[in-house]
Order: sequence, then C-alpha cells, then structure tokens
Amino acid sequence: MSIEQRENLLTALRRSSIPPDTGVDEQRRLLRERATARPVPADVSVTVGELGGVPAIRIAIDGAEPRHVVLYLHGGVYVLGDALQSADLASQIGRRAQARVVSLDYRLAPEDPYPAAVDDALAAYDALLREGTAPSDIVFAGDSAGGGLAVATMVNARDHGLPLPAAALLMSPYVDLTLTGATMETKSGVDALLSRELLEPRVTDYTGGRDPALGLISPLFADLSGLPPLIIQAGTYEVLLDDAARLAQRAAAADVAVTLDLTAEVPHVFQNFHLILDEATDALDRAGRLLTAHLADAARAAA
Amino acid sequence: MSIEQRENLLTALRRSSIPPDTGVDEQRRLLRERATARPVPADVSVTVGELGGVPAIRIAIDGAEPRHVVLYLHGGVYVLGDALQSADLASQIGRRAQARVVSLDYRLAPEDPYPAAVDDALAAYDALLREGTAPSDIVFAGDSAGGGLAVATMVNARDHGLPLPAAALLMSPYVDLTLTGATMETKSGVDALLSRELLEPRVTDYTGGRDPALGLISPLFADLSGLPPLIIQAGTYEVLLDDAARLAQRAAAADVAVTLDLTAEVPHVFQNFHLILDEATDALDRAGRLLTAHLADAARAAA
Repeated sequence: MSIEQRENLLTALRRSSIPPDTGVDEQRRLLRERATARPVPADVSVTVGELGGVPAIRIAIDGAEPRHVVLYLHGGVYVLGDALQSADLASQIGRRAQARVVSLDYRLAPEDPYPAAVDDALAAYDALLREGTAPSDIVFAGDSAGGGLAVATMVNARDHGLPLPAAALLMSPYVDLTLTGATMETKSGVDALLSRELLEPRVTDYTGGRDPALGLISPLFADLSGLPPLIIQAGTYEVLLDDAARLAQRAAAADVAVTLDLTAEVPHVFQNFHLILDEATDALDRAGRLLTAHLADAARAAA
Repeated sequence: MSIEQRENLLTALRRSSIPPDTGVDEQRRLLRERATARPVPADVSVTVGELGGVPAIRIAIDGAEPRHVVLYLHGGVYVLGDALQSADLASQIGRRAQARVVSLDYRLAPEDPYPAAVDDALAAYDALLREGTAPSDIVFAGDSAGGGLAVATMVNARDHGLPLPAAALLMSPYVDLTLTGATMETKSGVDALLSRELLEPRVTDYTGGRDPALGLISPLFADLSGLPPLIIQAGTYEVLLDDAARLAQRAAAADVAVTLDLTAEVPHVFQNFHLILDEATDALDRAGRLLTAHLADAARAAA
C-alpha cells in the first residue's frame, strides 16, 4: 500500500464508519449511502429476480456465458445491507471465477430473526440444484455475516442430505456471534468499521432470544466435517480477525482443506476497496485463482 | 489423491515411521535410510561448503543463475536429519522460487542443545547479508523443526537489528515444544510420523534444561511483530496441525501477513511425497507462486 493509498483508505474508512449508538434505520441508511459510491463496472449487468422464492439479483459480465455459478451472500450483521449494495464486490468474484453470480436478498433481522436467513439461503441453494446446476459448478461466497451464512448453509445443506458446492470464499467471515475472539478487544483500536458496541445490539436483533452459540447462528461451533475447501480472507486490522483464524483451525481439525489468507494492516472486507488498494486487487486475484482450481478439482472428481 | 496414490502414500508412510521407543542413534539411522530413497533430480547439483562458519550445502538447478536465495533449514526435531537428507525438498522450493538454495547443517542436540541451532542459523544469515545479498532477495524455508527455527531466526535477527528476508515458507512448522496443541491428542490416531511419545524425549535433548516455552525455542510464544509475510503449510493428518494454525493466528495478531494453507488428509511435511502425491506438487506450486510474489513485492519496496 503506497502512502497515497493509505490516505485514500483512511478517508474512505472515515466515510464508511457507522456510529454504534444509532438505530437500525439510520444504520441501513448510512450503509446504502456508502454503497452508492461503489457502482458496478460498466460491463456488468444486474437483473432483479428470485431463486427458490428468495429475492435475488443475477450479476453477469457482458459477453460471458459461464458454466459456473457463484452463490453470493452479502454482509451487514444479518440486519443491514442488501444484494445490490454488494453487487460490485460480488461481480469482482464472478469475473475472476469466470462465473455468473446469484446474490440473495435473504430476510433480515430484526423484522425476520434467525432462522429466516438460514432458511432462505438453503431454499435458494436447493432451487439452484433443482434447476440442474451441478454442485461441482457452484461456489459459495460471502462477506462478513454473509461469510458466516455461507458456512451455516453448507452445514445445513449437508445435514439435509444435499450435495455441497465445490468451494467457498469467505471474506472477513462473522462466525462467532458470542463475540469471544480475543481480537474483539485487541484489535478494537485499529478496526475503523466494527466493534463490540456496534455488534452487540445487532446480535440480539438476529438471535431473537435463541442461543447465539447455536451452530447455524455461529458456525464456528458447528460440526464442519465434510465441507468443501474453504478460502478464508481477512485483514489484521479487524476485530473479526480471530473469527477467521479460529474458523480455519476448526475446519482443518475436521479435515477440511483450508486456505487462510490474512493481509496485514487492512480493514474488514478490505476487498471492497479494490479501486484504491493494491492489496484488495491482489487478494481478489488470489481468491479467483483458488476458486478456479477448486472448480476444476470438483469437476474432475464429479466426472 | 487417487486410490492408487493413497495406497502408495500409506506404503511410504509405513516405511518412514520411526518407533518412539528407540534411541537417537537408531532414529538417525532410520531417517538416513529413508532419505536415500529420495535422491535429488538429475538437473540439481549439490556442493558441500559452509556459510558463516556453519556447515552448509549449496543446491543449484543446472543452467540457472538466479539472483534469489532460499536459506533452508531442515527438519528432525533439532536432533535428527541433515541438509543432504532434505536436499530434494529444498531443491523443489528453489526451483519454484527461481532461487539457489543454501541449506544449513546447524548443530544438533543432544550433543549441542539450544541455543546452538539458533546461533548457527543467525550466524549463517548474517554471513549471507555480509556477502552482499540483499535481504529482499532472500527467503527462509524450512520443514518441521526447520520451520520453527526459521521463525526463531527471524525473531532473533530482528532483535539483533538485522534486516529481515522477503518471506518465509514454513512446512508443518514445529513451533511449540511445550506440546500444548489440541491436535497433539486429537490427531494422534491419523499421524503416521509424529507423536507425543516420539517428541517428548527429543524436547528434553534440545532444551537441555531450559524452559521449552522460551520464544527462541518455541517461537509460537515469541513477539512476532515486524516479521515478513509467512506462508504456512500443513496437513490435517498431523499432530502439529495446531502448531501451524496457532502460529498463523499469533502472527496475524501481530499484523504479519500470513497464508495458512492446509491440505486435507495428508501427513506431516507431505511435500516430501511430491513424486507420488498430486497434493504435494500442488502445494509446492502454490508456495512457489507466493514466494515469487513476495520476492517481487520486497524488491519493489527496496527500490
């Protein structure tokens, strides 16, 4: 990161930060404002539709007719955000995996607490399989809570007897809603975006009285055996760093193949800043190469 | 891994295993026997010499005149092994990093307990720098105890005011000689090569009465700040899996860039089996690409 890039990043982070002492409506408004500053590239087309009864957008790179599908789950602590706000990042993944993208507008809390999001994601994945898409041609991807939801959905799909996708890309995944990672405290001084103060009320919104340690709420604590290869990326300047590191450790303990790819001194879901940050483009490129390799491996195993 | 590859691997592992109830001399003999089954490729030349007063071998791929240097540290729990036995694996790294390799015969315990190995590695690195090699053209690499020694040497070099190499590749690093990783127990049933029973007497040999938790003995517990990017590879079938995972977590907590690359269902230093195992070749290829990228980054930063 050059000195100029660091200054641009700090400016962008100041613009992006959400005061913890605001309500859900104000937090949603602030996130929407921020997202409008990141339009999708000119060669990307976005169409609004549904998948398995769940509202979804379909993102395609013009001129490409890819066989592969990225099922994308946006972030926003299960309360904020939507598929359109994450369309640029999702398109960056699709471009590099040479895939079309379906990004879900799963139901959000507090209006629809757990298990609404988990049910929606499973219904959409099930529909994708019923459409005839081979699981070996699908990868899951998600950022923040969407990364956690991607893991929960694979666990849920496995337990429902569904075949699993070829791989999953988890960017700064939020997988421990009990907030017990050591970095929740040790990185609070350098994380410009998230904090215990911001997360705690939103955990209550999502769990709606259920135990936040449930495996489908905090997949860090789920049985992870049988999952496909995981690509986990995070920055070292984030309170969720230990969510990423512990997920890698737990998944490998269950004999899952894992790449944990940690970039120094960058913030939560730093891939969002790919227009101003070399580290973001580099991480997306590495993720794309790994997704491509895992899709090829899965196709070979399926043949 | 095909069914045939799995059978070949199991046969190779049966041949490689060392009974824990044997003495150092017998364990050294068994390891030497095993190593002779892995000669270096035909285009690799090995010359015996020294670096900074430490016996070392120099490994070069014929016809290449590379600018980069891999400083390689072999494994063997600080008691067994030597540079020649690891020459094939070291040459695989050098080939992919387009580098020549210097692999050290640092002193071994019990004849020479800690800090002999640490002193030798620092003396050799210091000599490499004094020869005029730019630190940005050097990467450290090591397997097992050699991976731990690579981390200890970077910590030691930093504390001695020396500039650090561009990156380090740590294959199944042994970084916790207090043996407290949960996988020391949970993976004991699937690890064909290492076990608490095999390690414990060798820990005593190396520590020679010193606290095994010292940072230069168990670099998991050292201050890791300021270290260059780490590439950490391990298999999920090894008792040292948690050494790798915890090292990644601790390094990232100190704002070090980390790639933790965990391959499912393969053994300790599975890269040794590159002739019979696709996973080994793939992991070496990924390591080579990352080393090449880190060397390019370091050269850019130095310019």
